[in-house]
Amino acid sequence: MSPRRISPASVTRLLGPWRGERVGPAYGQLADSLRLLILDGRLPLDVVLPGERELAQTLEVSRTTVTAALARLRDDGFLDRRQGAGARTRLPGGPGERGAPGPLAGVEAEGLLDLASAAPPASEAVHGAYAAALSALPAHLPHTGYAALGLTSLRQTIAERYSRRGLPTTADQIMVTNGAQHALALMLRLLAGPGDRVVIDHPTYPHAIDAIQRASCRAVPVGLPDHGWDVEGVAAAMSQSGPRLAYFIADFHNPTGRWMSPETRTAIAAAAQRTRTTLIFDETLVDLWLDAPIEPYAFEEPESGLVRLGSTGKSFWGGLRLGWIRADAQTILALAPRRASIDLGTPLLEQLAAVHLLSDDEAALSARRAMLRSRRDHLLGLVRARLPDWRVASPPGGLSLWAELPAPVSSSLAATSERFGVRLAAGPRFGVDGAFERFLRLPFTLPPEDLAKAVDSLVQACARLRPSSSPARASLGAVV
Amino acid sequence: MSPRRISPASVTRLLGPWRGERVGPAYGQLADSLRLLILDGRLPLDVVLPGERELAQTLEVSRTTVTAALARLRDDGFLDRRQGAGARTRLPGGPGERGAPGPLAGVEAEGLLDLASAAPPASEAVHGAYAAALSALPAHLPHTGYAALGLTSLRQTIAERYSRRGLPTTADQIMVTNGAQHALALMLRLLAGPGDRVVIDHPTYPHAIDAIQRASCRAVPVGLPDHGWDVEGVAAAMSQSGPRLAYFIADFHNPTGRWMSPETRTAIAAAAQRTRTTLIFDETLVDLWLDAPIEPYAFEEPESGLVRLGSTGKSFWGGLRLGWIRADAQTILALAPRRASIDLGTPLLEQLAAVHLLSDDEAALSARRAMLRSRRDHLLGLVRARLPDWRVASPPGGLSLWAELPAPVSSSLAATSERFGVRLAAGPRFGVDGAFERFLRLPFTLPPEDLAKAVDSLVQACARLRPSSSPARASLGAVV
Repeated sequence: MSPRRISPASVTRLLGPWRGERVGPAYGQLADSLRLLILDGRLPLDVVLPGERELAQTLEVSRTTVTAALARLRDDGFLDRRQGAGARTRLPGGPGERGAPGPLAGVEAEGLLDLASAAPPASEAVHGAYAAALSALPAHLPHTGYAALGLTSLRQTIAERYSRRGLPTTADQIMVTNGAQHALALMLRLLAGPGDRVVIDHPTYPHAIDAIQRASCRAVPVGLPDHGWDVEGVAAAMSQSGPRLAYFIADFHNPTGRWMSPETRTAIAAAAQRTRTTLIFDETLVDLWLDAPIEPYAFEEPESGLVRLGSTGKSFWGGLRLGWIRADAQTILALAPRRASIDLGTPLLEQLAAVHLLSDDEAALSARRAMLRSRRDHLLGLVRARLPDWRVASPPGGLSLWAELPAPVSSSLAATSERFGVRLAAGPRFGVDGAFERFLRLPFTLPPEDLAKAVDSLVQACARLRPSSSPARASLGAVV
Repeated sequence: MSPRRISPASVTRLLGPWRGERVGPAYGQLADSLRLLILDGRLPLDVVLPGERELAQTLEVSRTTVTAALARLRDDGFLDRRQGAGARTRLPGGPGERGAPGPLAGVEAEGLLDLASAAPPASEAVHGAYAAALSALPAHLPHTGYAALGLTSLRQTIAERYSRRGLPTTADQIMVTNGAQHALALMLRLLAGPGDRVVIDHPTYPHAIDAIQRASCRAVPVGLPDHGWDVEGVAAAMSQSGPRLAYFIADFHNPTGRWMSPETRTAIAAAAQRTRTTLIFDETLVDLWLDAPIEPYAFEEPESGLVRLGSTGKSFWGGLRLGWIRADAQTILALAPRRASIDLGTPLLEQLAAVHLLSDDEAALSARRAMLRSRRDHLLGLVRARLPDWRVASPPGGLSLWAELPAPVSSSLAATSERFGVRLAAGPRFGVDGAFERFLRLPFTLPPEDLAKAVDSLVQACARLRPSSSPARASLGAVV
């Protein structure tokens, strides 16, 4: 496979208005801007830049400026040292670390405020749903309790929920899983083998990267631009890397919270169709719109190959471990025997509870959205007031802010903050190869008083960070 | 890696008293006996037999007899055609099929009597355990509900249960999983990569073979002799194939129901220790002794590298999907981040129910054993009376008989029996490469009246089978 190339137009788009923001000669400004793109993961690692002449043309600068800028990036270790055909992006000292596997969900934080996981408490509907499930249980006790594809009644309930929301679905298109992560692991096991490529948006959900890498597949990251998705970049990655799968979080993307427009969905689905890539939309957060209601199914779907993963984990509770795959009926049937190599089915009581929750969920979801909306606004206000040099936007949905820090110190901040009582997941957890040191995910899932305490702690941790020098990676990136 | 060789002593042991049972010249008797061993999976495929002179010496027959017997096996396709250094075992027409992935647990049998899965109904204790869990739930609802290693209280409960049974254990040696199959998948993900070898007893639990193969590992089967385990064969397989793992069901082996003696455990553990093989004992069925109580922990354990998998699936109910791994604390910690690539934890309510079930389980288990004991004896009686040419022994525990059929017709019987209202899992499902056509697993988990109906149906299906010719593989094996 030849290395992935990035087009001159993509570089221009990613650079945006790169002149004027910084001081110094044009070549220095260009070098700084490209360095930032690489550090932030927006310009992926290991892609080949256009030739110098082409770049100069598109960027409307002199060839000397481009040559000098690239030379500086080479000297600083952000491009490989080959001359000629096009330079390849890298990080100084080789691929970075994604950091420790990081705060494990559920490894108790022991008195720490947990800003590492974006998981709200249980919805009020959960206890009642389990009580209803307990009442329905006796009818199932005389049987074996196994159901590789899920209880028929639950598959029916999930199908009806899609139909109600405008996407006609039948029960044979649904497989019940132990959550969306398990659903992704099953799709990987079904469709991808060692060495296969999987296109992802970048940053993305850390456990999705884990699942891809542990399946011995290779993630092909496509950086997210300032707004929306880089459709051209996605299409190029698909046609150049020949991926088996592409995995996107179109609805309140984790960690950025952004939402994919119907036009972008149509375009990405078409690119997937053209390149015979199975497109996976992880809809774990689809219920959590916080501003205007969204219409995730109002776009032109490809005829085949679009797979949706759903979950009750964020809409209701993470302690209820239940998700599903929506695909064509043949794919669902093919999944069942694959599943047996990982586990033998979803607990029956969980399924009965989910039937109850998903049959009539509007009131519960509405209450949850109201709570999250107020926590989001609370956290936004706190960050803007107390950490004014952090850049935060208000996400239209989801569970977290994606804060841009004034310096690439995310990992050192995460290391320092535990001493001040807060557990963080540093930016690089959301990327491959150490990108995103200038970013930090801030979930707004804790109660308001805990959010206030957490921001207090972040302010203290930042103060502690500033005087001393930043660690290795941060010092490399002293670009702002 | 050089091919696996089998020692002259092992061949002699496997052959047992091979003379006198069959008619005809000595070379024909020897050929028939060896053919049966290969067909039944006791002599694994793709192993190299000792040289002719050696064989003649050990078996105390003339070299001419050995030469003629091996020539016949070559002609029939059971040995490869290379002369000289030693012949390699194979099946005519190449490796056989394990058959369709077979009756999926939980794909509803639609009016069929399900003799394919060995899963009893729920224990009487299950409903009460869920009710207790529901009472304990509210304290957990304000939290995220995630627990990668399991709730501390459950890990403690499981550790205490081991300690009570004579194996001192601490909570940090326990990881909670979604059942024993999920536990095996996690161990494979932690310790084995593509191409790695995993030693198994043969036959074994079909989903264990699935898990090994789907992890891109290679199963190295060691045939079970008539009684017990082939310790020498296991040790040879370990030293010759350099496996990462070995997986055994020592307690009421599935499908044969046999139980491994403390001496054998000690010897196998020592062989694993010598070859640095991580030894996994799947203890899913350990609670289901049906004759004398057993002492699974009364043997000399190696200092390290012994991993135990447990489950509530058979002891209480398959619909409650909960299991665990017992290993050293370091292994447990290493498992947690691996798990996140498959799923994010076991449902919280299941864990609360398990705390209740496992804290005080003697009454429930005692009732379950009484029920299973009576069903076992009932099925044994039925098979002996109605299918007198089937050989069945009374297993000391577990959930099934392993019947030896008078002809290698297991797959065709499974195909035919559905027309007579019974779903079966044919013998080859329990082996690799198509062995075990002369065997059939018969679970005694259905109610007595259903067992009677199922045996009626088997009698009819056998009658239908007999006049017509058997299918391809069966006709090859017309050796009895």
